[in-house]
Amino acid sequence: MTDQALADLTRRLPELRLLTDAGDLEHYGRDWTRRWTPAPLAIALPASVEDVQGIVRWANEYKVAVVPSGGRTGLSGGAVAAHGELVLSLERMNRVLGFDAVDRTLTVQPGIALEAVHGAAREHGLIYPVDFAARGSCSIGGNIATNAGGIRVIRYGNTREWIAGLKVVAGNGELLDLNRGLIKNSSGYDLRQLMIGSEGTLGIVVEATLRLTDPPPPSQVMLLALPDMDALMQVFALFRRKLSLQAFEFFTDVALKHVLAHGAQRAIDGEHPYYVVTEFDAPDERAHEAALAAFEQGVKQGLINDGVMAQSDAQAAALWRLREGITESLAPHKPYKNDISVRVSAVPAFLHEIQALLTREYPHIEVVWFGHIGDGNLHINVLKPVSLSDADFITQCEHVTKLLAQTLQGHGGSISAEHGIGLVKRSYLESTRSLQEIALMRGVKQVFDPNGLLNPGKMFP
Amino acid sequence: MTDQALADLTRRLPELRLLTDAGDLEHYGRDWTRRWTPAPLAIALPASVEDVQGIVRWANEYKVAVVPSGGRTGLSGGAVAAHGELVLSLERMNRVLGFDAVDRTLTVQPGIALEAVHGAAREHGLIYPVDFAARGSCSIGGNIATNAGGIRVIRYGNTREWIAGLKVVAGNGELLDLNRGLIKNSSGYDLRQLMIGSEGTLGIVVEATLRLTDPPPPSQVMLLALPDMDALMQVFALFRRKLSLQAFEFFTDVALKHVLAHGAQRAIDGEHPYYVVTEFDAPDERAHEAALAAFEQGVKQGLINDGVMAQSDAQAAALWRLREGITESLAPHKPYKNDISVRVSAVPAFLHEIQALLTREYPHIEVVWFGHIGDGNLHINVLKPVSLSDADFITQCEHVTKLLAQTLQGHGGSISAEHGIGLVKRSYLESTRSLQEIALMRGVKQVFDPNGLLNPGKMFP
Repeated sequence: MTDQALADLTRRLPELRLLTDAGDLEHYGRDWTRRWTPAPLAIALPASVEDVQGIVRWANEYKVAVVPSGGRTGLSGGAVAAHGELVLSLERMNRVLGFDAVDRTLTVQPGIALEAVHGAAREHGLIYPVDFAARGSCSIGGNIATNAGGIRVIRYGNTREWIAGLKVVAGNGELLDLNRGLIKNSSGYDLRQLMIGSEGTLGIVVEATLRLTDPPPPSQVMLLALPDMDALMQVFALFRRKLSLQAFEFFTDVALKHVLAHGAQRAIDGEHPYYVVTEFDAPDERAHEAALAAFEQGVKQGLINDGVMAQSDAQAAALWRLREGITESLAPHKPYKNDISVRVSAVPAFLHEIQALLTREYPHIEVVWFGHIGDGNLHINVLKPVSLSDADFITQCEHVTKLLAQTLQGHGGSISAEHGIGLVKRSYLESTRSLQEIALMRGVKQVFDPNGLLNPGKMFP
Repeated sequence: MTDQALADLTRRLPELRLLTDAGDLEHYGRDWTRRWTPAPLAIALPASVEDVQGIVRWANEYKVAVVPSGGRTGLSGGAVAAHGELVLSLERMNRVLGFDAVDRTLTVQPGIALEAVHGAAREHGLIYPVDFAARGSCSIGGNIATNAGGIRVIRYGNTREWIAGLKVVAGNGELLDLNRGLIKNSSGYDLRQLMIGSEGTLGIVVEATLRLTDPPPPSQVMLLALPDMDALMQVFALFRRKLSLQAFEFFTDVALKHVLAHGAQRAIDGEHPYYVVTEFDAPDERAHEAALAAFEQGVKQGLINDGVMAQSDAQAAALWRLREGITESLAPHKPYKNDISVRVSAVPAFLHEIQALLTREYPHIEVVWFGHIGDGNLHINVLKPVSLSDADFITQCEHVTKLLAQTLQGHGGSISAEHGIGLVKRSYLESTRSLQEIALMRGVKQVFDPNGLLNPGKMFP
């Protein structure tokens, strides 16, 4: 039956590339999570919107589940295909379709890498400001599916703010052309906004029109060493008051240890429990002076132990590497990841509570923290001890995540700040969304995907 | 039956204020449109979230339609109650509930006026940047219902960008607490975004958490006189390149005539077909020089006839009045209003087409144009000749709007940029949204409001 279905698919869409080799099934059947064994039916690589529509119509006839697939850099299992689904990879649809200088928009196919978007914008003297470490591998379609955030949210907001239009193939194969690049459009429900962050469960993005903006003024990068956790938000408040921040990222001494072992260069001597990398506008001497004044005030108040200001682009990149290299440096330790957020004002109390929780629940396990503290977003990486089996490790981490979810609920936080729910967090969704909200979400899913074929099993508990 | 239903409502909710006097029914039964005869069942003025929930639950039992009502400054009939609906006025729920300095958010009840929000933000040294002429009367709940835009969109975006959290009573009376002020939250569909711009058809906003931001640097206001329509977008491009714009608004000589007759003061002598009021950052001498250089370049290129730069706050206010006073000055002429948008890049071609259309179709009728040209948003006001009956006038205008809708469709534009669809534009929705999109919207409506009691007859064709 499935052979016949695939044969029919190939017959209908002669331009479609279809892969069924074991190696391809494994490669395309998983994302950066490593918890599930890939087992897709086949991999379809369409090169046109019409072929994406054809695949979805075919899937409805044969009742085959479809997993939309971009760069598969996701950390929540949103692109995992472990149950005979058809993986619909958008990697062949990776072109820039157009640039408009008056609208200041770039229209792209969904499979284009974020870094290629950055490059295309720069060619026109503009920027696409959403940015994070996976830029070279992640696709813009995946960014939209998770409403990706990253390291510049404090200045530019999330992906959501930069989407002027979306073309989407809905669950019945119909093509929706949502908002078409308009700045103002108060004509019915904004389905574009509903699509953003829906993790491929409502439709498949086949084209996106991205807003671009002017490059920021020249900036300056600074690394700060802090004496304790309480200093973090105080230094943030101090720097936000005095400077125009582009980024404000923190990590711990444990994170530093890993990234240094992975080849990054130490920039501040001595032992300090917390570090901050911050980047801010520095168009003139005044901004430099303001940064120094903020730094000195922080030192005087005992909030900052030490610091270094980048003296060149190379040094700025080296300081950034201390933060951006963390994820890669942890990968060999098969980390279990939490990606959580609370309101910025709730961060101090929340940090204390979860530090106590993690110390208590992971007594013999290394826990690495870092994140976008200015957005209230924390990444917790729990490193698997070599002595523990994968299964036992996951069981223990899921137990702690349940407790963490309760703490989050108490603070009105979110179990997923920017990675999405996918498979990894669906059993914790109820800590962030009420039962009524989840019921409404199910209703919405039913409207867009009546046969429940788009990324089934993801997001919903 | 209805008497009994109202008696039951009063019995259930003793704190509720319920009005049934003819004067009240008329006052609360309409908005700034004047096309429908108000005929609500009664006016309910709740003072608490619980009472709003009680009203919606009661409405479901008695199958009474509910029209949510804010400042009723709407121009699309979204708050009109002409068919025995219960008007749910939020005017008693008009308080500031809280301010958070770290989150930089202001939490308010929905009935608060936009101007009061501005004031509350200013008390804390911050601004809520959405702004438009109806600020003194419109409510924040209504702003959210239409995703209100206004005169600062070019700099700050629409209302949507400034909503950090919403509490909403859904169609079954359940209270939803959407996003809770989080900056990053990738945990399921963003129902907050779906609510924004839904014109009271999916739920009733009972609380909003608004993001605030730093005040802009000192600004400068300039009035420009332009020789022709083609100059408009060229001057916009020139000024956008040289300055950091906060607003860029245009109007015609006909609009000027009306606002001058209404008491505004002439600022530029002579006859000119087009005018622009622009406001831009002017923190230092450099910005002033850049503005003068842009102006001189415009004059040299024949794009600008004349101009005046405000020399005081009072003069800046006087220049702004030339633009902001237009709507009020036209009111006695019972204008028929179109509020349309296209992509900014499509403006020049679109302007030519519709100028030809309006000249042809309204040969003996005065048409006043103005709008937010930097957002691609045009307001067209057609003034009723005294000799024409209201009904004949509307018939003629609706005929032209049909043609206008076709032209918009050709340019990928929107039949409502910022006023919403309401009653006025629902028969034109299909020019902006595809049949598939409208079917999905109906499906979503059904999920949130299964009995179809929230603002029925609005938005949908």
